[in-house]
Parts: sequence; C-alpha cells; structure tokens
Amino acid sequence: MQILVWNEYRHEKKNNEVAKIYPNGIHGAIKSFLDNDEDQVLTATLDEENHGLSDELLENTDVLIWWGHLAHHEVADEWVEKIHQRVLQGMGLIVLHSGHFSKIFKKLMGTSCDLKWREADEKERLWVIDPSHPIAKGIGEYIELEKEEMYGEHFDIPTPEELVFMSWFEGGEVFRSGCTYRRGNGKIFYFRPGHEAYPTYHQAQIQQVIKNAVNWVAPVGRDYPTYGNAKPLENINK
Amino acid sequence: MQILVWNEYRHEKKNNEVAKIYPNGIHGAIKSFLDNDEDQVLTATLDEENHGLSDELLENTDVLIWWGHLAHHEVADEWVEKIHQRVLQGMGLIVLHSGHFSKIFKKLMGTSCDLKWREADEKERLWVIDPSHPIAKGIGEYIELEKEEMYGEHFDIPTPEELVFMSWFEGGEVFRSGCTYRRGNGKIFYFRPGHEAYPTYHQAQIQQVIKNAVNWVAPVGRDYPTYGNAKPLENINK
Amino acid sequence: MQILVWNEYRHEKKNNEVAKIYPNGIHGAIKSFLDNDEDQVLTATLDEENHGLSDELLENTDVLIWWGHLAHHEVADEWVEKIHQRVLQGMGLIVLHSGHFSKIFKKLMGTSCDLKWREADEKERLWVIDPSHPIAKGIGEYIELEKEEMYGEHFDIPTPEELVFMSWFEGGEVFRSGCTYRRGNGKIFYFRPGHEAYPTYHQAQIQQVIKNAVNWVAPVGRDYPTYGNAKPLENINK
Amino acid sequence: MQILVWNEYRHEKKNNEVAKIYPNGIHGAIKSFLDNDEDQVLTATLDEENHGLSDELLENTDVLIWWGHLAHHEVADEWVEKIHQRVLQGMGLIVLHSGHFSKIFKKLMGTSCDLKWREADEKERLWVIDPSHPIAKGIGEYIELEKEEMYGEHFDIPTPEELVFMSWFEGGEVFRSGCTYRRGNGKIFYFRPGHEAYPTYHQAQIQQVIKNAVNWVAPVGRDYPTYGNAKPLENINK
Repeated sequence: MQILVWNEYRHEKKNNEVAKIYPNGIHGAIKSFLDNDEDQVLTATLDEENHGLSDELLENTDVLIWWGHLAHHEVADEWVEKIHQRVLQGMGLIVLHSGHFSKIFKKLMGTSCDLKWREADEKERLWVIDPSHPIAKGIGEYIELEKEEMYGEHFDIPTPEELVFMSWFEGGEVFRSGCTYRRGNGKIFYFRPGHEAYPTYHQAQIQQVIKNAVNWVAPVGRDYPTYGNAKPLENINK
Repeated sequence: MQILVWNEYRHEKKNNEVAKIYPNGIHGAIKSFLDNDEDQVLTATLDEENHGLSDELLENTDVLIWWGHLAHHEVADEWVEKIHQRVLQGMGLIVLHSGHFSKIFKKLMGTSCDLKWREADEKERLWVIDPSHPIAKGIGEYIELEKEEMYGEHFDIPTPEELVFMSWFEGGEVFRSGCTYRRGNGKIFYFRPGHEAYPTYHQAQIQQVIKNAVNWVAPVGRDYPTYGNAKPLENINK
Repeated sequence: MQILVWNEYRHEKKNNEVAKIYPNGIHGAIKSFLDNDEDQVLTATLDEENHGLSDELLENTDVLIWWGHLAHHEVADEWVEKIHQRVLQGMGLIVLHSGHFSKIFKKLMGTSCDLKWREADEKERLWVIDPSHPIAKGIGEYIELEKEEMYGEHFDIPTPEELVFMSWFEGGEVFRSGCTYRRGNGKIFYFRPGHEAYPTYHQAQIQQVIKNAVNWVAPVGRDYPTYGNAKPLENINK
Repeated sequence: MQILVWNEYRHEKKNNEVAKIYPNGIHGAIKSFLDNDEDQVLTATLDEENHGLSDELLENTDVLIWWGHLAHHEVADEWVEKIHQRVLQGMGLIVLHSGHFSKIFKKLMGTSCDLKWREADEKERLWVIDPSHPIAKGIGEYIELEKEEMYGEHFDIPTPEELVFMSWFEGGEVFRSGCTYRRGNGKIFYFRPGHEAYPTYHQAQIQQVIKNAVNWVAPVGRDYPTYGNAKPLENINK
C-alpha cells in the first residue's frame, strides 16, 4: 500500500511549543509510526508546490491521511475536486481532528461539520462503542488522554455509518469521536483527537487506532461502476 | 405548513407530449394534489426571476419539493447555497426523480449521485421494504407503474439512513427508490419515479407517498444548534 | 390512541423512599402526564392477574410503555411472546431504564443488553445528537439530571437505527441513552433515565421526550405483510 | 483461523437429485472451496451426536457457517444458546439461504425472519449495492444465477447495518440478499442464494462471496466487555 500523510504544517513552524512536540511536523510523527516494510509512507504539506500533490501521486495513493486547521481555505479547490474523485474511485481517507473543517471533509459529508470546542487542558476519555469493529482492535474499553482540546456535540455530520468511539470530556460534553462513512468505492474514517499542542500522536493507543484505520479504509480494488445509459438485460414488453 | 414545489419547467414548454400529460407543468400537478385547507402550497420555476425564489420565501418554506432534469447547471450557486443552509436549519426537502443530479442533492450527499438509466417504456414495481415507515403509510406491498424510465444500481449515494422502497425493473435492474437522510436540523427524502413522459404524478399511490413524505420531512421547529467556543459545564482540573 | 403503561410496581410497594417519590407508582406518574382528551391511557402491573394483560387489551394497544427491574424473570414467557407478536404487527414499544434487561427487550434486540451501572447520586447530562428527530422536539441542547443512576458503555445492543440522545456521567462514562429500532411493522424507543430512587419522571423534559416518543412509535396502521409461497407477478422462462 | 461448516444434511441423504449436485453434502462442497493452507476447515451436521458440536469445538471456532432448512426445530435449544454466546463473544457467523429461519438467526435478529418464496426455476441477479465493501471484492456489477429459488420482500429482518447485495428475480420480486449485522463482539453475514436443488455453491462468484465473508466476519480477538457494577473513574459530587 501507498499511504500519503498530508499536513498543513503551519503550527509547527510558527509555534515553538508545537515544534517541541512535533519536531518533524505532525506528518513526520504519523509517518514514523506507520512506517513498515510492506507499505510506502509518503508525506505532503500545504506550502509545497501544489500542496505537495500531483495527479500521479494521488492516482497511486491507497490511503490519504489529512490534518489541517488554520488554512483550510488555502487548499485549492482543484485539488479538493481531485481528492474527492479519488475517494469515489476507492482511495481510503482518514480525517484527523481539526480536519473536520477541511474542504474535502465538508464536501464528502454535505453538512457544515461544525461543533463546539474549547482549549482548557481537560481530560478526554474515548469509549469503544463497537467492540466488533476492526478499528478498535487492540484497544481496551477506552483510551484516556490527560489533556486535549474539547470537541462537543452537536457535531453537524451525517449519522456515522459506524460509530466506533464516543468521547467523554471533563467539562461536561460528549462527542462522536470515531466515525466511518462510505462514499462510492471509498471508505472514510474521522478520528477526533490530535490538537497540535498535545503529544496525542505519540500515544501508543492513538497510533494503534490510526494503523487499524489505514487497514480498514484500504481500497478493495474494484473497477469504478459503470454509469449512464444501459441496455436491458432482459426482454421488455414481452 | 408552507410547501414550495420547484420545477425546472422546460420539458413541458418544449415538448407537446409532455405538455399533454402535465398541462400546468409538473409543479402544477404536484401542487394540485397537495392543496388542502391547512397548508399553503406555492410553486416556483427555473425561468422566473431568481428561479422564483427569494430569501423571504425560503425562510418561510417548511418543505421544498424539487424536480429538475435538463438544466441543473443553470441553477445559480447562490441559491443552492441558500437552500443548503435552509435544509441544515430544518427545512424539509423532497428530491424527485432526475433531481438526483441537481446541485442541491449532490451537495447534500457528497457523492456523484450517478446511476444507470434507460428509456424503454418498461414496467417498474416499487416494493415496500420498511413497513413501519410513515412514508409507506397507506401503500400496499408494492406500487406498480406500467411504464417508466429505468434507474439502475449502482446508485452512487451514501447509504440511505432509511430505505423505504426498492424498485424492480422489467429489464433486469434494481434500485433504491425511496431513501431518507438527515442533514443538520433537516430531513430529506429522495423518491425515484417521475419521468416527464409518463403520467406518474397522476397516480394515486405516488401522490400518497409524496403527501406522506411532506409530513415526514416537516421541520421539528427547533433552534439551530450553538456551535463554536464553549464554556465548560463542569469544573476542570479538580 | 390507546396507550398502556406497564410497570413492575414492586419497588414502590416495599420501599418507602420510592413510594414517597411515586405514591401512585411509576405507572401512575407516567399515566398522569400522558393523559389527554384524545388518547386513552391505561396501566397494568406485574402482580395483577396475567400481569394485567389480556389478548384483547394487547390487540387494542397502540403504544406499550414498559418499566421493570427486579422481576424480569417473573414475566411469563407466554406474554412476552404475545407482546413480541404485537410489536411485529405494528404496536409501538417504549422501554424505559432498567427495562433494558426485560425479556421483551432482549428478545427484540437479540443481544445480552448488558451494561455498566452504578448508584452514586451522580449527575447525568443527555445531549441531543440528532436535532432533526421528532423525539427531541422541544428539548434544548441537553437535559440535565442532578442525580441519577449511571449506565455506562459498552451497552450490548444492536447499533441503534437512530441515536437521539447520548449521556455524559459525572463519574466518567458515556451511554447511548435514546435509541430507536424498527422490528416488522413496529417501532421501538429505548430511553435510559428513570431510576426508581429519583424523581426523574416528574421532570418536564423527560416527560416531553416520552410524549414525543409515543407519537413517534405510534403504528402506521398497515396490514401485516403477506409471507410464504408466492405466485410470480411476471412470466418466467420466457 | 478455524472455520466450521454446519449443515442440516438431510436433503442430500433423501433426495437423489440433490445428492447428485452435492455428493459430499452442501457442507462438503463449502469446505472444499474454503480449504487452504492457513485455515482449518471442519464440518458438523445435524444428525451427529450433539449436532456434531462440542463446547471445545465452539470455543475454538472463529467462523461458523450455517445451512439448514427442514429441521430447524430439531436443533437443541441448548446449542442455540451456546452458539449465541459465542457470537456475542466474537465468533463470526455466516447464515446461508434457508438458514434465515434457523433458531440462531431468529434469536440474533429478534424478528420473525419470514419472507416470500417460490420454487420456479427462475433467474436471480444479485446486484452489488455497496462497491466499497470487502465482501463484494472481486465481484463484478452483479452475479447471475440462471435458476434459483425466489425469496421476496418483505423480508422481516432488522434493517441491515450494511446492505451489500440486492436481488432481482425474474418473477417480479426484489430481496435484500447480502446483509451484515453486529451483535456484541461478533459479526454476522446473511447470504441468500443456495437452494439445495441447484448447483449454486459450485458457482465461482458465490464461492468468492463466501470466502470474502469469512474474512469479514472473522473475530477481532478482543476481550469480552466488562459489565455490571462499576467504580467511578472520576470524583463524584465535588
């Protein structure tokens, strides 16, 4: 598999605290725990030419992981369209944390993807709601994160096709934190945690979930369906 | 309730055969069977100024019914945005037949909404898959249409939240024909039949389904959720 | 509509604290806020003959509300079968709180319906997850209950067809608190709150949810489907 | 993985026509195409002692495949209970064709599992509805079976969590033919085709679907959730 980790990569460059946590960028951290002998893990970032993307790169990407926050509006619509096409063709997509407001996620969801949020160094506990789901494999009853940003309901998304995790927050809110969707030939996983100011992507269980999700969203490798005018398969008006 | 029936209204003006079936337009036919003492039923069409729409009209519309086919691209993006906002705020939306390719339906679904099709005067039989659903109230085991356009799978939509009808076609295809979705505060129903060359909207059971759907998609009348930065409801870091 | 409120009615008779909160039983409290000019609201309890049930009563019941806790095993299998049949035929069913372990709920779900629980006078906050749903009509962003029993995930139920409420508990857990299901012609709503030691059913918002749910689970009034050997509707082997 | 193919094995013994199609029984045919170097494929049949089952066998089974028809009532309730427990603990279950009326499937579904049927040597075409699903991997747009028994809607099952295949029948009916469910830690797949009088299980695409399904229902291998009384994870009544 070819896995592409895309990151906005702005916080890490302008904020020392973030840079200390992610010296190689959030994309670098994610790449490092995904690296293995069988898959090719690549990265791309917003400020590279064409956001680090090319038609060929997208064509060969099996799973795209997306982290963005400050600069969703700077992602060119042209590339959003191309990524959208690739998802419908079967490319898996994992949208992380503040990527909920990315153009590609909003386009795939059809809703505002809005939510409540708060930065207050509070505790998050992600409960496994669906113990039969491969994305929760190897995770105990819950994942505890001592300090995270809060995201609270109502989260304006279509009802998840599978709800794998649900978060409890110290400040009193809940959130649908691990959500799957299918669009065309493609599969999508949204995973809530990962505020840039916390070492969330260094946490072993969070890494396990993302690894599981890569396998779950992987393409099944089938042709794009045939659409348009169709000859009858049976006699009509017998 | 205020119900707005929107129609592209082009086929009826340029094709005599269609005009004979729908002398007052498809919108006129739909309005005529929806009219009752309690609801106000209005119509709007593509070639009117602003497609017959206004901010005030949309604001006061509880349920919008949409039929379009040839000229989806002529619907101004500005109005698509406004309709999208109104759905998220709670306005019900019923998308009919070839409206599957309308800008508003594609935007709400996040997929291509593509499908197979064929015009061959063939029989369609819509089976009730969910007998507990209010949209199927008063309908027997199936609705039979002697001649209709065929729409066949794969239909590139998100998995329906509720699948009410499933079609059998004489030529060998099947189709998910009655599909519900929820987006924000709003509810959506897609209903397949209604090719302009057939008197489908004069059929009593088809009219019953659309009446049922108007009631089902009707807004619950709640405030739009509060999004954005949120104060904690409980003490943090105790 | 005819609404039947069924209650185990044991706690109220043997525990003074509970009796003070519900002097007419939990069934009496629920009946009192459901009573209106249009519906007939009846009650039945475990220790009456045949648990207060009869074939005729069930046949005429549109919506059955069920509260039980200590004595699920004392409900005769014969009546569980009859209630099950009536749900498949279209009778609405609302299962409250500890009714999660009732024979009828387990039979309809096909799972253990097990969960975590704790009696610790803790705060529960039920968040509205689906603002488009009629069961949440008139409810703000959440319902707050100062003291309730905790029910925590994992809750061993099939994935709810619609998830209307999700609970946050002071002690650190979350729970799927308002869940809908469809079985045959019938609709089911499970609603979590209502421990006998708290005045939960005297709370206005809880009453509103139960009233909304009665309307939502109400039968659509259609014939039971025809099953078994079926003649072809089209020619075979043409 | 250990895969257990359970078959009623009555038709094959008393009907020469069936015996010619499945000389080693339907279980033998299924075992033969599942056999591979990595998995252990076993079989069991109704008339063996304890229906060929044992506690140890079930405990070690990862995926159970079930075919039954004439003698569902002869399967001892004790074994149905044990299989039910194993599914909740994570064992995958594939229910084939007339197994829709088996005790275990009805118990897991909570409905009557009734349907329409007809034996008329008619054509069935199974359309892939969800092209992103691993169970449809390697299958084209549809599977065509020249002659099969008809099963028609309404099929009295809970709404499938994922609907992978939908059947068209020559005689005019449709059917939800490939349905997934999750119950506890376990995953279930129902697959419609496989009447004993036709060589359906010798068909390559049908074999492919069953192989895919074995992988899909395979256990994730996690502990059974902890239920019952739970200590708080956070301070209460601060």
